[in-house]
Amino acid sequence: MKNFEFHNPTKIVFGADTVAKLSKLVPETARVLILYGGASAEKTGTLAEVRSALGNRTVQEFGGIEPNPSYETLMRAVEQVRREKLDFLLAVGGGSVIDGTKFVAAAALYAGEPWEIAERGGANIKQALPFGTVLTLPATGSEMNAGSVITKKATHAKLAFHSTLVYPQFSILDPRKTFTLPVSQVANGLVDAFVHTTEQYLTYPAQARVQDRFAEGLLQTLVDIAPTAIDTPDDYDTRANLMWTATLALNGLIGAGVPQDWATHMIGHELTALYDIDHARTLALVLPALLDVQREPKRAKLLQFGERVWNITSGSDDERIDAAIARTRAFFEGLGIPTRLSAYALGQDAVEAVLKQLEAHGMTALGEHRDIDLARSRRILEAAL
Amino acid sequence: MKNFEFHNPTKIVFGADTVAKLSKLVPETARVLILYGGASAEKTGTLAEVRSALGNRTVQEFGGIEPNPSYETLMRAVEQVRREKLDFLLAVGGGSVIDGTKFVAAAALYAGEPWEIAERGGANIKQALPFGTVLTLPATGSEMNAGSVITKKATHAKLAFHSTLVYPQFSILDPRKTFTLPVSQVANGLVDAFVHTTEQYLTYPAQARVQDRFAEGLLQTLVDIAPTAIDTPDDYDTRANLMWTATLALNGLIGAGVPQDWATHMIGHELTALYDIDHARTLALVLPALLDVQREPKRAKLLQFGERVWNITSGSDDERIDAAIARTRAFFEGLGIPTRLSAYALGQDAVEAVLKQLEAHGMTALGEHRDIDLARSRRILEAAL
Repeated sequence: MKNFEFHNPTKIVFGADTVAKLSKLVPETARVLILYGGASAEKTGTLAEVRSALGNRTVQEFGGIEPNPSYETLMRAVEQVRREKLDFLLAVGGGSVIDGTKFVAAAALYAGEPWEIAERGGANIKQALPFGTVLTLPATGSEMNAGSVITKKATHAKLAFHSTLVYPQFSILDPRKTFTLPVSQVANGLVDAFVHTTEQYLTYPAQARVQDRFAEGLLQTLVDIAPTAIDTPDDYDTRANLMWTATLALNGLIGAGVPQDWATHMIGHELTALYDIDHARTLALVLPALLDVQREPKRAKLLQFGERVWNITSGSDDERIDAAIARTRAFFEGLGIPTRLSAYALGQDAVEAVLKQLEAHGMTALGEHRDIDLARSRRILEAAL
Repeated sequence: MKNFEFHNPTKIVFGADTVAKLSKLVPETARVLILYGGASAEKTGTLAEVRSALGNRTVQEFGGIEPNPSYETLMRAVEQVRREKLDFLLAVGGGSVIDGTKFVAAAALYAGEPWEIAERGGANIKQALPFGTVLTLPATGSEMNAGSVITKKATHAKLAFHSTLVYPQFSILDPRKTFTLPVSQVANGLVDAFVHTTEQYLTYPAQARVQDRFAEGLLQTLVDIAPTAIDTPDDYDTRANLMWTATLALNGLIGAGVPQDWATHMIGHELTALYDIDHARTLALVLPALLDVQREPKRAKLLQFGERVWNITSGSDDERIDAAIARTRAFFEGLGIPTRLSAYALGQDAVEAVLKQLEAHGMTALGEHRDIDLARSRRILEAAL
């Protein structure tokens, strides 16, 4: 096991009818900005619940944070926070709204040009406004971590930043808030949580038995609940398991003390920035191809993954690895999520365009061994055609 | 899944050579009291390492905290803290030292008679001194939770208290600190972590799939590492897995959103208070007997436990439950830990004495269904003869 530090101060408030607890979680004297995405937050009644729980506090709102939240949009929220002297942020939505809120929390108190926060990966964050979240879409884990991904529309740049100063103070997870989600977003969430887990698990053996068991437990759970999560939107327990699984997939726990990959994410980010493909859907494009190309460095863990997650115990090692990758691909496709670039009418031109972006962003040594250079990214992308 | 709150603010610093990080973790201006147990902390060099890392800070020491830390001993530490105006505590040891430090942290700032803290279960703690820990014995999980168990020698009372104010600020977990432990303490640690897990897992199905998988992962890991943990004291990775497993077994994670039992602990506490049997050893006495007596209310989970932890898949339901309990009993016995009261020369008299204590302490409705009354506790104790 590698040395590690684990410190996750976010308070999780989980369960039915928990939005009302905002009345105790947000300081009485706070000047609050509620941040949200599209019209669904209003339509579903969640915003009304939130307003009611906040009672007599000073509350303003900022809607319109888009999927893959943009610097351009978020800077308008930063201006509102500064102008109105707001001092507490409340994200109501999914990973995009929460990621965007993290940026606003840091940018509002940042002395320079806030895009520098993304450019420096968050290392230059010295302070941030406190904030909480009301999660409505289980997928990214942003509700219990200190990471964020922001896109600059002007340059198609999609950059991640991290800082311990942007952990949410609290996150409210009410599984019933997911009942009204479109099926496609639930499918995206299942894939997102699955790939977050594999990025921290499918590397090489590191004698981290608990982390392996926990990662396998999350993957098994996602596979087990997927059919009901898709077919029965109001099955409370299934949605509760999805919500808690997605949170635990990226809260630092399964990644503590183990090697990590994240190449699937880095390549996927370029596909989103260039072609506006949903984040999770880019992961489904890249992961099966990457596992195939990286089968040698990942051999031992791919065999373990096959046996413990997919119950694949017969055949040669390569046959078992083939079967594990095929089962993973079939899992994504079964959710209605394509695993081939051709499904988006993308071909060799896209491969070249993505490679150019990876080079421009310095993504030339990805993966747990830093062995995914541009040549190997090319092989991965071509295997995804 | 039940509604839950999960909030664990303890920072874990895990790995080889991490004691030196105390120099950054403890405030520069702190007036520190180091609390420890017996002579081993000095002999192994751990105290010297701690002193060195604390540098020029004002540091005092308080040794002699015994297993099952006593109110009588701890009150001397409280007096020292108050007299010397110390403001930061550092526990160096295992669960007893850490539990004791939690009591000192709260008692030093408590206006009334500090034993009231134990009597009220911690509900009357309004403030506590900040403290950190250097863990040397993986077992209790006290390094990452807010619970403590204190014994009053005068009355043989062993009482637990909880308060979010007594989470350690940080805990340093260096697996190498366990290399010099006596085999019996390692065996105790394996059993303690195992039973902490079963207390939160072997109840009834609650549609908490992730918590089940995580609990099973901890149990599987303990079973897998036990032989090497016992036979090869300096196997770093094995001890690292033991240490991290024991911490995760009782940090609130696997218990979030699920029913819990804790009857094994409550009955075990009386055995320790009356006969001075090591805490973990009392759990090994009670658990197999309790699972047998409670096989009806626990039927579904016992079958799941048998299948997922012990790979028991054939036979009638009752045969599989018998086999799961037998495997659990054999696991404890294989570690050199008896599962029968007769091994301690205790018989029917002890049963009567424990029942009297349970009644005196109001422990008359134990277990996840509150159905373990004195009559059922009698059946459990008699099944352990």
